[in-house]
Amino acid sequence: MSTGYQTIDRTRSSARIERDIEALAGPDYTRSQDAICRYAYTQEYRNTLDYVGGELRALGFDVGEDPVGNLVARNRPKGERVFGIGSHCDSNRNGGKYDGTMGVVAALEVCRVSHELELGLPLQLISFLEEESSGFGEPLLGSRIMAQRVTGEHLREGARAIDDGRPFWEHAQEAGYEPERWRESIHVLDDLVGWIEMHIEQGRVLQDNDERLGVVTAIVGLLWADITVFGRADHAGGTPMDLRRDAGAVAAECVLELERLARSAGPGTVATTGECEYRPGLKNVIPGEVRLGLDIRSVDAESYRAVAREIGAFAQTAAERRGMRAEYLERSNTPPTRMHENVVDALTQAARESGERFRLMPSGAGHDTQLVAALVPSAMVFVPCKDGVSHDPAEEARPQDAALAVEVMVNAIRELVQ
Amino acid sequence: MSTGYQTIDRTRSSARIERDIEALAGPDYTRSQDAICRYAYTQEYRNTLDYVGGELRALGFDVGEDPVGNLVARNRPKGERVFGIGSHCDSNRNGGKYDGTMGVVAALEVCRVSHELELGLPLQLISFLEEESSGFGEPLLGSRIMAQRVTGEHLREGARAIDDGRPFWEHAQEAGYEPERWRESIHVLDDLVGWIEMHIEQGRVLQDNDERLGVVTAIVGLLWADITVFGRADHAGGTPMDLRRDAGAVAAECVLELERLARSAGPGTVATTGECEYRPGLKNVIPGEVRLGLDIRSVDAESYRAVAREIGAFAQTAAERRGMRAEYLERSNTPPTRMHENVVDALTQAARESGERFRLMPSGAGHDTQLVAALVPSAMVFVPCKDGVSHDPAEEARPQDAALAVEVMVNAIRELVQ
Repeated sequence: MSTGYQTIDRTRSSARIERDIEALAGPDYTRSQDAICRYAYTQEYRNTLDYVGGELRALGFDVGEDPVGNLVARNRPKGERVFGIGSHCDSNRNGGKYDGTMGVVAALEVCRVSHELELGLPLQLISFLEEESSGFGEPLLGSRIMAQRVTGEHLREGARAIDDGRPFWEHAQEAGYEPERWRESIHVLDDLVGWIEMHIEQGRVLQDNDERLGVVTAIVGLLWADITVFGRADHAGGTPMDLRRDAGAVAAECVLELERLARSAGPGTVATTGECEYRPGLKNVIPGEVRLGLDIRSVDAESYRAVAREIGAFAQTAAERRGMRAEYLERSNTPPTRMHENVVDALTQAARESGERFRLMPSGAGHDTQLVAALVPSAMVFVPCKDGVSHDPAEEARPQDAALAVEVMVNAIRELVQ
Repeated sequence: MSTGYQTIDRTRSSARIERDIEALAGPDYTRSQDAICRYAYTQEYRNTLDYVGGELRALGFDVGEDPVGNLVARNRPKGERVFGIGSHCDSNRNGGKYDGTMGVVAALEVCRVSHELELGLPLQLISFLEEESSGFGEPLLGSRIMAQRVTGEHLREGARAIDDGRPFWEHAQEAGYEPERWRESIHVLDDLVGWIEMHIEQGRVLQDNDERLGVVTAIVGLLWADITVFGRADHAGGTPMDLRRDAGAVAAECVLELERLARSAGPGTVATTGECEYRPGLKNVIPGEVRLGLDIRSVDAESYRAVAREIGAFAQTAAERRGMRAEYLERSNTPPTRMHENVVDALTQAARESGERFRLMPSGAGHDTQLVAALVPSAMVFVPCKDGVSHDPAEEARPQDAALAVEVMVNAIRELVQ
């Protein structure tokens, strides 16, 4: 049943989003002069949470943090059902103003709009800790803690700060948190009837198709693997072509084969060789060993595994054909996460009613939402970012697109909380 | 006209060569405990020259050094014609016992044998300074100074020590030399009627063909170049296959094409991609820029230039086909050096008379001899090295092969000084 499409003053929302983004790019909120750099338990990160929390308190929200530092703010008492919105406001160390932060700021704007227009939406905003891995080298740390996808042992010993090598546990305690109560974080999700995260796309699909919004249908499965080819590091001058065991030639064949496999798997599957290390890496020495770092993703659970299996087998065959050997080593493997049909439908309906150009699309990047989605009906909204650039000071996204996303989220939430 | 083949006591020569090699691998002669590491103007290098000089003085040689530190020893007064033999006794920083040093030691053994057998050969031994570039980052520095292929300006300012960045000039002065007289070095070559350098092969051709000697007919022309492919560093997850500008894919095509070009150029031509640098070099980012470092060599002056031309053109075409661009930059280009027919013939004749398996072959590596050859009829003799390994502590060569080389050199020199 429709409640009628609710328009908002997008110009005003856009201006407020821009103001928040620019405020959080100021010197109190970043450890770098040349980029946005903020991560857990630093003063700059504290200031960022305080900014967001202050804005929410002004709207009558009850603002707090879970035992490790995920920010949680709600406008209904504990025990009443609420709709979840948010993202993360940490950055990578050489980051831009928009990745994560624009999602938190857009969620904040949903709260403002609901307040101003007296829509009475029951809302809970979450800003997840350590999405970007800048503090402790591990992505999605706050949401993994909340979803109980870590162990206490790991938080006590395994997860260590990039800056000083000391454990997460100690840093959390020094910042005034209670990491020993980390298992209670899951209760943040207790009252959620749904969850929507807005994020910049980190790709160029929306820009290149002149679209203003993407409704995310699935977060891709992601597999990281290394292929190492073992050849022979002979002298480049003294070794005729037919006596060589050139690991670089096998590696080159693998790079091209991986591209071919991903293309033939069809849309929704991508594969990338982003790392290539020659050893010894000298002009006058035939590469004796080459390591390739592979990234394989798909919304289809079988598809990315098949590409991985086939490139592993190809590497071995290609190496043997040249009298060498190759090793394939899987580093990580996260299955795809489908977004919830009801939330996707509500967002699609609202996007359609907005009259703006949008598309249904997968997320090629990982997000906190993939952890929330295991427990709460979830989806995401993407806004375009300039040339697909993210994780870089050159990152750019338009506040007016975020304001449109706010309007679409407000309408979807109205529909879903009925 | 033949003088009759002169056999020597190879067992005794082999034992002396081994003794010298092992002595010069001792702690007084290397700056590293795990490798041979000696270079110009260090105490370890000084000790090495003193060891060689002492052995030569015992044979009645007049031992000295040119104004920059090339060791020169002769058994005839200045002005009388002599035959030149020698190599270099510096090493790369993580070097083995044989590269260079075994050539100096074999030359020393030629002097001993001539003395012992009262052959009366007029000899001049040279041990060149800084062949390996370990001291000042420049290969063949001593022989280039002698052949006047440097400028005073460069020695004063351009050539700088790897260790402290100070100029060659200052280091030479502090070591007691007179770099301001560098131009006089060329007179070291004044009385030479010929030149032979023995060296380890630095390849596996002799080993794999079960041959004990190589008579070098030419030193290859050597061209170093960079290919840089400019793509676009997009997010590996957010960028569908058909929107990519993957510099790594073009680079992989270039690696395979360079191999194909070298193979089709035929024996005597080799090409290697020894360096491959991905930028940014992260698993989840499509490589936006890849630099390949190429090494192309041939005994045929046209052949290596043609391979270089064709790979440069291929890179541009391959990049354009994928909507990218590529730059080809030549870094250095040294034409091939033919060995002198008379010296090659004399060595070939002697090798044949030795009854041992040998071959005529190009040198795929550069050597001081290529600079001497511009002024003096020159050639080289190779001995096998285990698995082609050089520039590494694992380097191995057999003293008995060096003793055979000594016998062949003695016979060739006898023929040539008649």
